Amino acid sequence: MIELISIGDELLHGATLNTNAQFIAHKLYNAGFEVQRSTTLPDEKQALQAGLKEALSRSKVVVTTGGLGPTLDDATKSIVSQMLGCEPRFNQRYFDHLCQLFGEERSTFRSQSTVPEKAELLYNQLGTAPGLIFADEGLILLPGVPSELEGMWPKAFEFINRRLKDAPRVWHKRITLALIREQKVDPVLRVLKDQFPELGFGIYPAYGYLGVRISGDDLDKIDHAIKKVKDEFSSHLMTDGAFRPEEVLHEFLTQNKQTLAVAESCTGGAIANRITMLPNASNYFLGGVVSYSNAAKSSLLGVSKKTLQTYGAVSSETVQEMLDGVFNQFESDWGIAVTGIAGPSGGTDEKPVGTVWVAIGKRGESPYIGLVPLSRSAWARKTIIRACSNFALAGLWHLIQHNTSPFEAYNDKL
Amino acid sequence: MIELISIGDELLHGATLNTNAQFIAHKLYNAGFEVQRSTTLPDEKQALQAGLKEALSRSKVVVTTGGLGPTLDDATKSIVSQMLGCEPRFNQRYFDHLCQLFGEERSTFRSQSTVPEKAELLYNQLGTAPGLIFADEGLILLPGVPSELEGMWPKAFEFINRRLKDAPRVWHKRITLALIREQKVDPVLRVLKDQFPELGFGIYPAYGYLGVRISGDDLDKIDHAIKKVKDEFSSHLMTDGAFRPEEVLHEFLTQNKQTLAVAESCTGGAIANRITMLPNASNYFLGGVVSYSNAAKSSLLGVSKKTLQTYGAVSSETVQEMLDGVFNQFESDWGIAVTGIAGPSGGTDEKPVGTVWVAIGKRGESPYIGLVPLSRSAWARKTIIRACSNFALAGLWHLIQHNTSPFEAYNDKL
Repeated sequence: MIELISIGDELLHGATLNTNAQFIAHKLYNAGFEVQRSTTLPDEKQALQAGLKEALSRSKVVVTTGGLGPTLDDATKSIVSQMLGCEPRFNQRYFDHLCQLFGEERSTFRSQSTVPEKAELLYNQLGTAPGLIFADEGLILLPGVPSELEGMWPKAFEFINRRLKDAPRVWHKRITLALIREQKVDPVLRVLKDQFPELGFGIYPAYGYLGVRISGDDLDKIDHAIKKVKDEFSSHLMTDGAFRPEEVLHEFLTQNKQTLAVAESCTGGAIANRITMLPNASNYFLGGVVSYSNAAKSSLLGVSKKTLQTYGAVSSETVQEMLDGVFNQFESDWGIAVTGIAGPSGGTDEKPVGTVWVAIGKRGESPYIGLVPLSRSAWARKTIIRACSNFALAGLWHLIQHNTSPFEAYNDKL
Repeated sequence: MIELISIGDELLHGATLNTNAQFIAHKLYNAGFEVQRSTTLPDEKQALQAGLKEALSRSKVVVTTGGLGPTLDDATKSIVSQMLGCEPRFNQRYFDHLCQLFGEERSTFRSQSTVPEKAELLYNQLGTAPGLIFADEGLILLPGVPSELEGMWPKAFEFINRRLKDAPRVWHKRITLALIREQKVDPVLRVLKDQFPELGFGIYPAYGYLGVRISGDDLDKIDHAIKKVKDEFSSHLMTDGAFRPEEVLHEFLTQNKQTLAVAESCTGGAIANRITMLPNASNYFLGGVVSYSNAAKSSLLGVSKKTLQTYGAVSSETVQEMLDGVFNQFESDWGIAVTGIAGPSGGTDEKPVGTVWVAIGKRGESPYIGLVPLSRSAWARKTIIRACSNFALAGLWHLIQHNTSPFEAYNDKL
């Protein structure tokens, strides 16, 4: 019913990660619409025309992204105009809009304001390229710059909603479980699938937490099945919907006016970065220390040199003193400390790559300290950093909710 | 010639970002192979068969990712077997491999070791699903877990290389320019395009730096055109190839045994995170402070309360004292400090969202301090954080190379 087409050699060359397709798919999915296919095509005319024609013949709505800029390799607008037999026409109102937006006239404004005559314009409030809607064909062209695309999405979505108002919707419910592994959830979903063969089931594992999706056209049945999963895994239930642990913590800490600070060695700022990517994180996040060197562990967090010498930087003793340092340096209610070996080098027989200690605690109470239960499939630097950040954040959520050890809750490997 | 097919409802729902397609495309591109189309298909049988058949009829090599796991929604293997008319057969050697790899027998090993009879197996060293090569069809099935896929990629690539050994290659050269804007580079490329109409040109802007690509089948011509771009923008040339500023700094600091530390407010650990995602960053990165609260700016970096009161946390005075704090707390040769308003809230008339001060300096020398020249199109929290991180890192590179002000080098808006 809906297809996405992402346009640009930079995508096919692997130079750019396609976040736009994900953004649009996610928005449509939440509204009950199914994206049936998502295709990436080059800037080249023939391939682009062929791909567009196929999509338009199959689908009632086709959304393209990219290739609307003023530069040499951006050719979507002219290729589509030619394909649909539209004349280009200069749009004075859009030109005026650009002059006002940027406070001056620029050389690219004239070509950016020249658009196929029958297209409806989506005004760009951040950049120069307008979005274009070809209502008869159900074709929407959006710019490739994510912020520009996201800005004009609501208007594009209105059009889709109107065009597909009588189409059947597929409803989805998601829940997110913490500190549990795919293999524990799958058998439960298999039983439910036998019971509700008309529903769709999915698991989205993410090292330390996972999403469960149930979809179908009958909301009551979906709710019934979701409830069964929730009951089965009540102690792991982090939230309704698809959210990352930092988002769930964000809600909780904001609501409850509690604060958090962190000390990171091998995660190198990943935890702080994930938290502070969320708007208004400053309401509860007081800060962090990235103690990548031993000197920084001592000077900024007060880890004793004796501890570092006796037990090493990767040890339960060091991570405990790092957490003490967090509570000494920040006024936070909650604290996280992480130290370990993300690799690929730096491992030893005694402490191989993937040895990561985490301390999670509440001010004034004994912290929980343990090794992140990394399995073999997580033994890559990026994955280790991601998995340990996940585990620390999901672990803090668990501690807040249950006041028991996150390390015991997760009696399996990530 | 080559098509990629990414399989999984989680991709079409926008639940998962498709990094696998980028990984494979990038590897092929660097070897001179063009990916002509990249398609995402659902786990559903009919759609998957239709998409696969189209791709196989168009392309000599088709690489799929995803849907090989042991769980309910993973159905690629059986769908392909059925489509190609292959019988499943239990592979004892692969079963033994899994038992050895995991040190035990698990319930999923038997089904994971049951594979289409004519497929060649790619052994998985991290997870359970084998990759499969159907040599006659030019079809390669890879698992969707990135680390597993990446682990078996070399063998998959060997097959592609053999199968396409006589195919024409398209060569690409990339260079990366720092502190320059797309609009300055585009006119130069247009002139070159007139001179070398047979070459392909691309610009990949990334807020604060950008990539230029020139491609074609004649390496001499490509080199000639690349040299012209380099000569034109010699003071902005960051590196041959496509690299991010943190990667270029990584090389330089490692080679020259110099060290770096950072203090981050509004970037919230993003700079430290980007640096420490790179293996062996500990050779030169001493650490960072995420001073998200005023208290942390004072206690960890020694920013005076008077400065914070008089000028505010977002001011040239504060960012200067943050940088002083970096040099006091760490032994680093180089330092970066950032403070600003990433929004969406927190802005005022005097200091709107997007006001970000950066200080970049060498120990013992006067730092360069200025506002990040953010343009309107970067006014979204994520983009501000990314753009400011880019600018700070590219700015440090500029300072190291040219010992002049990065703020003057970039006399334009990001």
